[in-house]
Amino acid sequence: MFDKVLIANRGEIALRVARTCREMGIRTVAVHSTDDRDSAVVSYADESVQIGPAPARKSYLDIAAVVEAALRTGAEAVHPGYGFLSEDPDFAEVCRDNGLVFIGPPPEVIAQLGDKTAARGVMARAGLPLLPGSLDPLGSASEARSLADDIGYPVIIKAAAGGGGRGMRVVHDAAEFGRAHRETVAVAQALFGDPRVYVERYLATARHVEIQVLCDRHGNAVHLGERDCSTQRRHQKLVEETPAPGLPRELVERMGEVSVAGARAVGYVGAGTFEFLVGPDGRFYFMEVNTRIQVEHPVTELVTGLDLVRAQIEVAAGAELGLRQQDVVPRGVAIECRVNVEDPERDFAPAPGRLVEFSPPGGPFVRVDTHGYPGYRVPASYDSMLAKVLVWAPDRPTALARMDRALAEFRIAGPGVRTTTAFLRRVLAHESFRAGTHSTAIVGQVLDEQHGPHRAAG
Amino acid sequence: MFDKVLIANRGEIALRVARTCREMGIRTVAVHSTDDRDSAVVSYADESVQIGPAPARKSYLDIAAVVEAALRTGAEAVHPGYGFLSEDPDFAEVCRDNGLVFIGPPPEVIAQLGDKTAARGVMARAGLPLLPGSLDPLGSASEARSLADDIGYPVIIKAAAGGGGRGMRVVHDAAEFGRAHRETVAVAQALFGDPRVYVERYLATARHVEIQVLCDRHGNAVHLGERDCSTQRRHQKLVEETPAPGLPRELVERMGEVSVAGARAVGYVGAGTFEFLVGPDGRFYFMEVNTRIQVEHPVTELVTGLDLVRAQIEVAAGAELGLRQQDVVPRGVAIECRVNVEDPERDFAPAPGRLVEFSPPGGPFVRVDTHGYPGYRVPASYDSMLAKVLVWAPDRPTALARMDRALAEFRIAGPGVRTTTAFLRRVLAHESFRAGTHSTAIVGQVLDEQHGPHRAAG
Repeated sequence: MFDKVLIANRGEIALRVARTCREMGIRTVAVHSTDDRDSAVVSYADESVQIGPAPARKSYLDIAAVVEAALRTGAEAVHPGYGFLSEDPDFAEVCRDNGLVFIGPPPEVIAQLGDKTAARGVMARAGLPLLPGSLDPLGSASEARSLADDIGYPVIIKAAAGGGGRGMRVVHDAAEFGRAHRETVAVAQALFGDPRVYVERYLATARHVEIQVLCDRHGNAVHLGERDCSTQRRHQKLVEETPAPGLPRELVERMGEVSVAGARAVGYVGAGTFEFLVGPDGRFYFMEVNTRIQVEHPVTELVTGLDLVRAQIEVAAGAELGLRQQDVVPRGVAIECRVNVEDPERDFAPAPGRLVEFSPPGGPFVRVDTHGYPGYRVPASYDSMLAKVLVWAPDRPTALARMDRALAEFRIAGPGVRTTTAFLRRVLAHESFRAGTHSTAIVGQVLDEQHGPHRAAG
Repeated sequence: MFDKVLIANRGEIALRVARTCREMGIRTVAVHSTDDRDSAVVSYADESVQIGPAPARKSYLDIAAVVEAALRTGAEAVHPGYGFLSEDPDFAEVCRDNGLVFIGPPPEVIAQLGDKTAARGVMARAGLPLLPGSLDPLGSASEARSLADDIGYPVIIKAAAGGGGRGMRVVHDAAEFGRAHRETVAVAQALFGDPRVYVERYLATARHVEIQVLCDRHGNAVHLGERDCSTQRRHQKLVEETPAPGLPRELVERMGEVSVAGARAVGYVGAGTFEFLVGPDGRFYFMEVNTRIQVEHPVTELVTGLDLVRAQIEVAAGAELGLRQQDVVPRGVAIECRVNVEDPERDFAPAPGRLVEFSPPGGPFVRVDTHGYPGYRVPASYDSMLAKVLVWAPDRPTALARMDRALAEFRIAGPGVRTTTAFLRRVLAHESFRAGTHSTAIVGQVLDEQHGPHRAAG
């Protein structure tokens, strides 16, 4: 096992990784920007290295700075967390070239699955069902338009190099297509340095369901069940849960099987997530693979009892998965709510500041992952997620009551600080959410009912 | 189900009960002393009533004041927590006489099991094995001395009305007996208003193992497995865990079966705990029944997934246990550490004060039950337990590493405030604790190794 691991991330996930390392007896190195010098992980880790200022491209995205910190401190492996460099094949390759173990899949696998059209191709060949659409990036606007007309509207245009909900655009009819295509190409170029896009059918009322897989270097691969992530605002997940409410277990089991087949097809190693849409007719469609730990991984931990970060580290160190598919017996229900420092009354504008008061909920079957603490000044330079509140319960009604209780307990206050806790409680109390019949349209519905439809587009 | 429940307790257990009530949609009434006006449960509950000053006999032990608060606020039921009035048959009876549901067994059952010699008698008849000793309270000192000589030393003299580790004294040889007997009688009179004592053999290196039972009013009774509570200082538990390390499962299963038989024999209703000693030879002996929720009940919750307070409330409201013995399938390992505001360097003298800093641990598989919060002034009037830190893990080595990580994370600071977190980490790191071969002597061993044996008697 490694003696020392560098954590190439910030916020709650950096602390999350450091906690598991401490339990494993592994020393940790935190890297941080100047804006993050007061971050919880900096004092938690055994060592810390400042690697540059905000924005992230001058620090957390600076491959040379991160690798140099690892080499200088004698770290043997690098955990990339999520976001930042976690799905950058160049980073994984530079780590390898410098004798550092990248805790994630091989760079070639990251590259193949990071190209969303290449991923669709390989997964289609592995037997995964796809939405009607292009298997290759589209050349001209007219080629794309012609394909969209064939598929039938609405369609969604996605950046080939995108992922995580960024670089995509829904098109409701042919008249919108040309402009939407031009804009998505421009955004793709700006965000990912790659203008290529593809088109697929858009399901307006689908469920977003994903499968967690775990694979070692020795050919063993299992899935750890599903997470329903349908509660999203602008393709950003707000609430995740398992089991996916109302989905037949045979459907989920089938999604798990094809995900393992897909992982095997690309020689996957480590923890990964296969994302699917499930249509109102109960058919499911592969969307993409996220080649890293997910924000919502604790949902799976709570029902399986596994520590997924530990599993990542063990697999990266060469261990065999001591786990067969029949050993994975999820128990009960887990729900996660992401608490963001945003103002729901001001279109979810970021609302960071100093946390004069910060008391997370506790007691029975509540877990909180947060880098917040009393007195912490939440920097404005990064994303707005401050905490993940999770609950476990034997059944979904109890889990919903527990989550409402936990969110109500969470005390966060400070000048200018606003959070989404009250908004999340409204989502959880929404009739369709309680019934488990909600789709990815749920957040819009909650906002409409609160403010009237004129705010829905805001 | 009840609309409103009064919580006749303070500290973490009052908040614990209030949390479950909130999840069940039950309104809560907190009662509190003048010293506890800033207690977390006072702001958490829907209503609060100040019932008197410290010490407890003027407030939390004042039956009339508690019952009046319940009647005035329209509460339908009373949850007594642990300690205070929780095992007082008079309180349970006054509740009943006033049309209030006492959330616990009937007063007659509390009275019978509260008299430790009567309890030994009924449990012996129900087939539970007892240590050699007196089945009736002893009359004269010479009668007691004669019995002790017959049993063989060491013996333990216990108050018939005692329990919870109070009012007991170990006697190592005949020469000590007379004085020890006189002193225990005096203590029993002072603490419980009842001078009666009994004698039984003392096992110097036993394990303290208890069985959680749960019974409804309809004749259904199950046990929820065991908790090992061998880590004690002066008969006060510090660390509890399940499963009991190293005990054969058949032994524990047999303890569970006889506990259910004992519960049935007395017509038990609600949650209760059968306490046993397990000798080095693997034989077990019934000690007493605690007719209330235990401090360490969350250990059982973490492995069974049950909310025991919810179960208590449901049973008290007349519901049937929706649970058969074969439905109880404990999973993994759970450990609890009690964090007290005490100074281990000064013989565990109470060290309360204002909590300038208070950040409980979090992250994977950690649960904290506490009434503490930043700025809280821990009153000196009550017992010194500030928090219970719990972890769950699939196996004991992982649980121990996780608990060490969690205790290390716990930040508690303030003028004059000292805690037992570092001491608990030393106990958990002790060779015999890690091996699971420790007995009730473990805390003495840790103190000896730290300070030399001259401190062991301190």
